[in-house]
Amino acid sequence: MQEMKIVVFTAHPADSIIGAGGTLARYAEEGHEVVDVCATLGQALRPDMNPDDVGRIREEERTKAANRLGYSDIRNMGYHDTELPYNREIVGKITQIIRGERPDIVMTYWWQNVHPDLRNLSKAVSDALILAAFYYPSKLPAWNVKKLYVFSSLNSINWDPEFYIDITEYIDKKRQALEELTLVDELIREWEGPSSRGLANQIISQNRHYGLYSSVPYAEAFREFFAVEIKSRALKYLPI
Amino acid sequence: MQEMKIVVFTAHPADSIIGAGGTLARYAEEGHEVVDVCATLGQALRPDMNPDDVGRIREEERTKAANRLGYSDIRNMGYHDTELPYNREIVGKITQIIRGERPDIVMTYWWQNVHPDLRNLSKAVSDALILAAFYYPSKLPAWNVKKLYVFSSLNSINWDPEFYIDITEYIDKKRQALEELTLVDELIREWEGPSSRGLANQIISQNRHYGLYSSVPYAEAFREFFAVEIKSRALKYLPI
Amino acid sequence: MQEMKIVVFTAHPADSIIGAGGTLARYAEEGHEVVDVCATLGQALRPDMNPDDVGRIREEERTKAANRLGYSDIRNMGYHDTELPYNREIVGKITQIIRGERPDIVMTYWWQNVHPDLRNLSKAVSDALILAAFYYPSKLPAWNVKKLYVFSSLNSINWDPEFYIDITEYIDKKRQALEELTLVDELIREWEGPSSRGLANQIISQNRHYGLYSSVPYAEAFREFFAVEIKSRALKYLPI
Amino acid sequence: MQEMKIVVFTAHPADSIIGAGGTLARYAEEGHEVVDVCATLGQALRPDMNPDDVGRIREEERTKAANRLGYSDIRNMGYHDTELPYNREIVGKITQIIRGERPDIVMTYWWQNVHPDLRNLSKAVSDALILAAFYYPSKLPAWNVKKLYVFSSLNSINWDPEFYIDITEYIDKKRQALEELTLVDELIREWEGPSSRGLANQIISQNRHYGLYSSVPYAEAFREFFAVEIKSRALKYLPI
Amino acid sequence: MQEMKIVVFTAHPADSIIGAGGTLARYAEEGHEVVDVCATLGQALRPDMNPDDVGRIREEERTKAANRLGYSDIRNMGYHDTELPYNREIVGKITQIIRGERPDIVMTYWWQNVHPDLRNLSKAVSDALILAAFYYPSKLPAWNVKKLYVFSSLNSINWDPEFYIDITEYIDKKRQALEELTLVDELIREWEGPSSRGLANQIISQNRHYGLYSSVPYAEAFREFFAVEIKSRALKYLPI
Amino acid sequence: MQEMKIVVFTAHPADSIIGAGGTLARYAEEGHEVVDVCATLGQALRPDMNPDDVGRIREEERTKAANRLGYSDIRNMGYHDTELPYNREIVGKITQIIRGERPDIVMTYWWQNVHPDLRNLSKAVSDALILAAFYYPSKLPAWNVKKLYVFSSLNSINWDPEFYIDITEYIDKKRQALEELTLVDELIREWEGPSSRGLANQIISQNRHYGLYSSVPYAEAFREFFAVEIKSRALKYLPI
Repeated sequence: MQEMKIVVFTAHPADSIIGAGGTLARYAEEGHEVVDVCATLGQALRPDMNPDDVGRIREEERTKAANRLGYSDIRNMGYHDTELPYNREIVGKITQIIRGERPDIVMTYWWQNVHPDLRNLSKAVSDALILAAFYYPSKLPAWNVKKLYVFSSLNSINWDPEFYIDITEYIDKKRQALEELTLVDELIREWEGPSSRGLANQIISQNRHYGLYSSVPYAEAFREFFAVEIKSRALKYLPI
Repeated sequence: MQEMKIVVFTAHPADSIIGAGGTLARYAEEGHEVVDVCATLGQALRPDMNPDDVGRIREEERTKAANRLGYSDIRNMGYHDTELPYNREIVGKITQIIRGERPDIVMTYWWQNVHPDLRNLSKAVSDALILAAFYYPSKLPAWNVKKLYVFSSLNSINWDPEFYIDITEYIDKKRQALEELTLVDELIREWEGPSSRGLANQIISQNRHYGLYSSVPYAEAFREFFAVEIKSRALKYLPI
Repeated sequence: MQEMKIVVFTAHPADSIIGAGGTLARYAEEGHEVVDVCATLGQALRPDMNPDDVGRIREEERTKAANRLGYSDIRNMGYHDTELPYNREIVGKITQIIRGERPDIVMTYWWQNVHPDLRNLSKAVSDALILAAFYYPSKLPAWNVKKLYVFSSLNSINWDPEFYIDITEYIDKKRQALEELTLVDELIREWEGPSSRGLANQIISQNRHYGLYSSVPYAEAFREFFAVEIKSRALKYLPI
Repeated sequence: MQEMKIVVFTAHPADSIIGAGGTLARYAEEGHEVVDVCATLGQALRPDMNPDDVGRIREEERTKAANRLGYSDIRNMGYHDTELPYNREIVGKITQIIRGERPDIVMTYWWQNVHPDLRNLSKAVSDALILAAFYYPSKLPAWNVKKLYVFSSLNSINWDPEFYIDITEYIDKKRQALEELTLVDELIREWEGPSSRGLANQIISQNRHYGLYSSVPYAEAFREFFAVEIKSRALKYLPI
Repeated sequence: MQEMKIVVFTAHPADSIIGAGGTLARYAEEGHEVVDVCATLGQALRPDMNPDDVGRIREEERTKAANRLGYSDIRNMGYHDTELPYNREIVGKITQIIRGERPDIVMTYWWQNVHPDLRNLSKAVSDALILAAFYYPSKLPAWNVKKLYVFSSLNSINWDPEFYIDITEYIDKKRQALEELTLVDELIREWEGPSSRGLANQIISQNRHYGLYSSVPYAEAFREFFAVEIKSRALKYLPI
Repeated sequence: MQEMKIVVFTAHPADSIIGAGGTLARYAEEGHEVVDVCATLGQALRPDMNPDDVGRIREEERTKAANRLGYSDIRNMGYHDTELPYNREIVGKITQIIRGERPDIVMTYWWQNVHPDLRNLSKAVSDALILAAFYYPSKLPAWNVKKLYVFSSLNSINWDPEFYIDITEYIDKKRQALEELTLVDELIREWEGPSSRGLANQIISQNRHYGLYSSVPYAEAFREFFAVEIKSRALKYLPI
């Protein structure tokens, strides 16, 4: 396979690792370039903590987690958690990133989500793929992303996977990455009470559950989302 | 809560335990009556074994598994695995069981399923609830089941849960029950290869995954399916 | 049942009574606290009348209607009918109400609606449940609503009820409440012409229709909508 | 409009009147021919009565009801209630009726239904339209039905109306027709208890409810279902 | 049929011709009034051209194309391509057009679309029908549109046609109209490469495809979308 | 890519060519083995011709059409058109073909179809994949098909493509193949009247339409359908 560039956009730190970490680990290991862009610092996670502290810790944690998965190009767009807008400005910023990076594959969340940040981010990414391909007042030349793939988050609604990617070989890396995310882990333990087994166990269980539907021990789940001018959208062969 | 009777119908042995074992354990522990009816002996599980041997072993295993969950009324309708029909005869037999047992709740599979046995059994149970309530040439008096709940199986299609039941207190019992099902466990290990962690781990992961969507450590998932004359279908209160 | 607080949010006066009046009457009668928050004064109902007059009359009418149902905590957020926004300000105001009231159950409309006010209000309530649970710059402590239930309005799209609540005992109270809503009643009579039988008859017919699907004379219809951290979302028992 | 022939197929007596009576009354009054074919005698309605007596009474009642609506061509295919099959024989019989009558419009139930009789009848009618249009070993020449319209019954699942037909002018006739159906009326009163207001009130409420969605006092609801070779399926104008 | 006025709203020039040109040609030929309102000049089509030039050429082309179809009332709302907002201003402008024109039928896009301009325009039109019917601060009197019909664009999602309109008699006019749209034609030829057969062939193929589903050589596809107070929404007859 | 075997099952002759001919041509050209199994002879196509003559002609035509596409393994199961059953016998026959051929990919129709033959065949193929993998009383060893792909037919309902395969290079071969199908071509010309352009034009238009959604000149559309034990269902990479 030719070397590719994958850019993944999320609203909150490490959601890329939770939703697609095993798949990203494979792409990284096989020499593809992974760029992980988070729109906010995830400051609002803990109602009982100072938001700036939370943001700083989460940024460090997701950097360590990404390293566990084998990639290190970690970026932040600087929005504030729970205040991520859906407007022309954020669409324009993502458009510029896409025109600048010229990725083959873009990944983000499935757009139906109860959390406004996630819904807004997903719509902004989808819109930006269109602006990137048509006229846009930018010095960067137009760019057509080949595929836009979406994964779910805990707050997704009507999520119905279309593809399962086998991550069995990468499940240990993913577990190590998840174990770096101590702030989220603590919150889950608090919510679930004394019988909780924490974040890594929770997400690994979900990958095991997706594996159950795809006859492998562990899998991640994706859907394709339409981009505007997707020259290679038609495949040459049925996937097998 | 008043004492209730729950009758669960499946096509293959122990599918009730896989899909609803934790919920059944709770009902059993709290003094409700559980009747577990399987239509076949599950003879066709192993293409490489004598079907009668497979059937005998699986019947023993599901009896032990049910005992782990706290109930013992285990019945079999005597059909042959992969040959479970959808016809007037099986609908009539289930109608008679329903008129004889007079259950409050009936459980079975979600009807959309790639496996013909499961699809046929689900349709036959749903039809039987109607025949049980209307005229039917039987000495047993008519009976209206209050609720028909369905759970998924591995081969379910378009499965979209409506209710999650918290089974955290019963997860250990469910694990022990699943560990009795050695024939299915071996098949899964064979399918998944050396990295497989077997049946119990697989199903418990699924319950963990459902818990993820319902803010408890472990949950099972159900939908209501319509019965014909369901006097109490309207609730008095919104579930909380 | 433990005493609960229910907060219902609508965009236009008395939509709570039309959609959920019988259910609210039951909760009120059994000692639960009902808070009925309307975002606008419903000023735009009559294109041929002065908006301020319409708003004043409708506020009086909905107060009388609520009293017929047995509750009296009636509030208004002061937005203008047909101008209800979906933005950070209104989400923040609802967040503050939720943190202040600390309700067990929140009710609002089903979000898919052709009327922009209703769609905006529904999305704002759903978002506010998330902000209320996470970090939010407010002196009021974080609060997790247990359940978010939605009902339909006349302009709902793709409405598919999940629960029916039996309101047969409260149908007379609901009729009396609906009869207080004279401005809406007149509009309906004008739209439907001489054969019209008016608002109360129309809504009661709808409740009769929902009863038809739930084997009781009169019912109201609801769906659960997801909130972000809903500790008790998994139930202990299947609803019966 | 050119004079048309409408043939309606149901599984149980008078379901055509409940689902489409107002619409049929209009067609009859305006000189179109209505043929009302019931597959069974509805013998199984009352578990506590002799089936043959039930069948005889219901056949009389539906004749009187049809007369109230203005048509009199009432036929019965002689199947037994709760035993209506889905097989080549019944499809063939309906094929022959269609080739013999050469209707413009065929009506039946929406196919998704928990009652096996209704589901079977709906599928058999749909199949028969195909056999009627292609080679079939019959002396009657092939016939292409122009439109197949379906209405709901109480047991329909996933029912989502596509067209509403204004029956306000025919609502009194429909009420009179429904009042002839005493056996069903008694069953509903028994199911609903002392607060029941009976069948006619129930169905008229449903038509009022559909009117609510189509801005008329009373309406019936339909969907188009595909026939195989539907020359005129494309319309000349958008419906208005 | 009484003479009607049809107003069609699109975001980009000539989308009305692509989606509904044959149907508009019929209405025009039979003496109905067609008003074709475009929100933008389509300036962003070509990333490699000056936007103002693109806008001017496209406006000329769509005027010529409309003339081919037999109507000439072509208007532009002056928004900029890829910047079409969804806000109170644009909804108000469309409300004023509707109150001023008093159309029987309004047409626009199906609202689910990956292109933000199309999604925004579709929502704005739907909202404006509501504001036009209720109180709105305008000297123009309130107006109820009878029907809102939507057609698809290339970027529509979940598009499921409800009506097919036979355009066989108008297919030559539509082809001539499409051949006027040289800028879009060039873009498609560039995207598809040397084997491309251009825009007109592409759209005519789509109409042939819709004809395949409606037993005519060429058809266009529509859905009804709900308007708020649609007195005549219930039909007198089933469409045939 | 490793050499594969593809077995395609249809109910009527040449439906494989109409639905998947371009894709099959590619597989054939690249050295994969294509086996094309038709369940009936398509005898009922013409109500005005002798069924046996029709069957003989259609079998010859589809052989010639397959040769145009580059494969020649054409088989017939000997059922009669319009009488194709869904029962244990046909499922067993297909099970034996699958165990005998041991294909990597099986193709058939999307199961939701108004034509009973197509619906029955689709369900029988899906069931047979399960029987082939589990215990089945046959001397042939068990076999797990890797992927089951489905395509649409003209009578498909709720068809929503998941994958588009680029057939631009094979469109001329497909056209030549379609031109061999004279009996179907005549029927379409008769149905559509003097403006008809016949079968090949119709199907090529459909492929052009699918190309429109996948940014290539011509495409065919597929969905994956679940098989029971699909070891490789999880992919290694996202399709690109």
